[in-house]
Amino acid sequence: MRLYDLIIKKRNGEALLKEEWQFLINGYVAETIPDYQVSALLMTVYFKGLTLQEMTDLTDAMMHSGETIDLSGIEGVIVDKHSTGGVGDKTSLILGPMVAAAGVKMAKLSGRGLGHTGGTIDKLESFTGFTTELIEQEFIDQVNSIGLAIIGQTKNLVPADKKLYALRDVTGTVDSNGLIASSIMSKKLVSGADVIVLDVKMGSGAFMKTYEQAADLAEKMVKIGERMDKKVMALITEMEQPLGRAVGNALEVKEAIDTLKGKGPEDITKLCMELGAHILYLSELVGTVEEGYTKLQSVIDSGEAFDKFRQFVAMQKGNVSQVDDTSLLPKSDFTLEVESSETGYVSKLDALKVGLISLALGAGRVTKEDDIDLSAGVYLCKKVGEKVKKGECLAILHGNSQEELLRQKEELLKAYQVDLKDVMLPEIVKGIVTRKQLKLS
Amino acid sequence: MRLYDLIIKKRNGEALLKEEWQFLINGYVAETIPDYQVSALLMTVYFKGLTLQEMTDLTDAMMHSGETIDLSGIEGVIVDKHSTGGVGDKTSLILGPMVAAAGVKMAKLSGRGLGHTGGTIDKLESFTGFTTELIEQEFIDQVNSIGLAIIGQTKNLVPADKKLYALRDVTGTVDSNGLIASSIMSKKLVSGADVIVLDVKMGSGAFMKTYEQAADLAEKMVKIGERMDKKVMALITEMEQPLGRAVGNALEVKEAIDTLKGKGPEDITKLCMELGAHILYLSELVGTVEEGYTKLQSVIDSGEAFDKFRQFVAMQKGNVSQVDDTSLLPKSDFTLEVESSETGYVSKLDALKVGLISLALGAGRVTKEDDIDLSAGVYLCKKVGEKVKKGECLAILHGNSQEELLRQKEELLKAYQVDLKDVMLPEIVKGIVTRKQLKLS
Repeated sequence: MRLYDLIIKKRNGEALLKEEWQFLINGYVAETIPDYQVSALLMTVYFKGLTLQEMTDLTDAMMHSGETIDLSGIEGVIVDKHSTGGVGDKTSLILGPMVAAAGVKMAKLSGRGLGHTGGTIDKLESFTGFTTELIEQEFIDQVNSIGLAIIGQTKNLVPADKKLYALRDVTGTVDSNGLIASSIMSKKLVSGADVIVLDVKMGSGAFMKTYEQAADLAEKMVKIGERMDKKVMALITEMEQPLGRAVGNALEVKEAIDTLKGKGPEDITKLCMELGAHILYLSELVGTVEEGYTKLQSVIDSGEAFDKFRQFVAMQKGNVSQVDDTSLLPKSDFTLEVESSETGYVSKLDALKVGLISLALGAGRVTKEDDIDLSAGVYLCKKVGEKVKKGECLAILHGNSQEELLRQKEELLKAYQVDLKDVMLPEIVKGIVTRKQLKLS
Repeated sequence: MRLYDLIIKKRNGEALLKEEWQFLINGYVAETIPDYQVSALLMTVYFKGLTLQEMTDLTDAMMHSGETIDLSGIEGVIVDKHSTGGVGDKTSLILGPMVAAAGVKMAKLSGRGLGHTGGTIDKLESFTGFTTELIEQEFIDQVNSIGLAIIGQTKNLVPADKKLYALRDVTGTVDSNGLIASSIMSKKLVSGADVIVLDVKMGSGAFMKTYEQAADLAEKMVKIGERMDKKVMALITEMEQPLGRAVGNALEVKEAIDTLKGKGPEDITKLCMELGAHILYLSELVGTVEEGYTKLQSVIDSGEAFDKFRQFVAMQKGNVSQVDDTSLLPKSDFTLEVESSETGYVSKLDALKVGLISLALGAGRVTKEDDIDLSAGVYLCKKVGEKVKKGECLAILHGNSQEELLRQKEELLKAYQVDLKDVMLPEIVKGIVTRKQLKLS
């Protein structure tokens, strides 16, 4: 087999076969196929797309390109969640304890962040002593014991995806939904969950700018999952403005704890309930999605969800007193309140701009080697649809450089738009993609 | 400027600007732009095509990517010819002396062949002592003196094209007419001719399989030439069967000499007259293409065309007695006559198969390092449309291995198809593309 022939075949409109995708992936990882042929093939895929069978075969080939994880030692239904990434997204911190308290097992591999804030692992390190470096048996034992563990990825999982992504990133072939779907699903499926829920973000703050793009990606991922005999569903959710009010690591941890106590912002609460209810339904713990809602509401009301989070932080050696008293979490030296210069309704709050402000204040990384300032970030006093009076707080900036705070105050004012006329409160969930249907909310 | 941005721009349907093509070509030659980005861009071009302005800018950037030739020392109109390559194509050997005898200057850079037979330079080396290694001043002096010189390419001309072609060859991006047109025109234009005629082959023995493909390529090249202020026209000619009757280096030289004496096969004579007449017309040596025909017929009839060839071989140190007596040209140890097993009309003669037979007999090269057997090849007794009786000669194979001759006899029989019903004699010239019109013959 020669990659050249596969390029020609794909270019001329034929679908590649399972063994041809394996040949590509294995050869690329083994470095017997050069970058310049792979990038030509990727561009061909950009223009010609992938069939469902091709996406499934590519996903499968990538899944088996490196080490794998054996979760067969975990009893019961294993669940996982993936989000395509957005500003202020602390869903994993909330969803994990909620569904574990309700009776399923979440065994989650997570990453550090590159961009506006840290990843889930960075956020969890807001707790003094918290470790994400468990060996495989400890990980399995903890999931069996309390239903929840979140660790960093230490094994060389799906190396093909890392290599391919790096190449796509410099050759203009990132934004191909077939490649995105295969990339995400290979990483999710390798970690062995039975039930996977996907949160596909759409809007100006997300990679998918339109509903159509997001729905297409969601459908592709759900279908790949179905072919792989997994129970998969996806929500299409809004990412025009940040999720919740907190953006930044320790700030988001605090908001996650509030939400687990039933006192979180409406959008993040709604999103976690919806994802969680589908997890319980697909896990067959409840008979309908509606029962899932009820079940989750009960573990929040009873305090079990919060207790699960406490237990989880304790098991991974985090300082539990910081869970009980969030004022003990990392705190910035300075805060700066940004006041509105107008009276009216917030009509726009640019997620991307808020992300960049958070990054500039130190909450994120530009390169992998950068340190994160866990205390830095933005707290949004006002969100889209809310009334604001001149002089009222729009947002509070948290940082350790007064100069930077002053600079970012100007940026923050540009992120907001205030209009005189009443604005509708946006719906967080825009659509639901299940195995059998695509529903619009 | 970053190539990444140019890939995205082109991918999204925008045309690249002159300075962007220059950035690509200069960066690729300087090795500051990696192969894998260039191959992604080339695949984008495959799918999105190039505008005329883009082709012109790419051609211009490639032309200036290496050394150049200064032909300003040549007095009068300089002409050149390019053929997209076919089996039995000895046009340059005939056309050069013809038009030089008629009064224009042909200063030709030529190459060695890779494939079924040698290139023009290999063929000329059939004359003992013939040299194609002239220094630039000798080249110019010879053109000024006798109107014709054909030399090998010693300078590093158009290195970008060599690099790009090598990459296209392994990434499935060869068959893009925009890239082919820019590649050919950059190589033709760098050698400084004022008038260029192009012979674009079509059919099963050519790279362009259909009339539409060939006409599209021809139009692109003529238009690029026009933008570059050159006088350019193209013929679209048939390459279903080989051109003329001789395939192989010394065999083709003999046929070229016959043709210069007015005794060549009809198809090659017609093709050279048509190309030559347009050269004379575009050079403004005659007022109409028809006058060009008359002029060329007169230099053949008077013996001036043949004398010019003799003069040319002598100037480049070839043995002139081999021009006068072609039986002195390299001759194979063995010949094998292949007889027809049927009576009827030749309805098909597969150019590609004949080319491969010629290669197997030793007339061509598989790799650059191979030696060529100048004496080997195929002489076609019968061509398409001709009547043949059972037992009559179809072709004569020339070679130095009896075993190989016997093997190739079987192949040759497969190259011919003989039918009972009368077959039309094919027209060699299928179309003419001039600056102002596209004519069908």
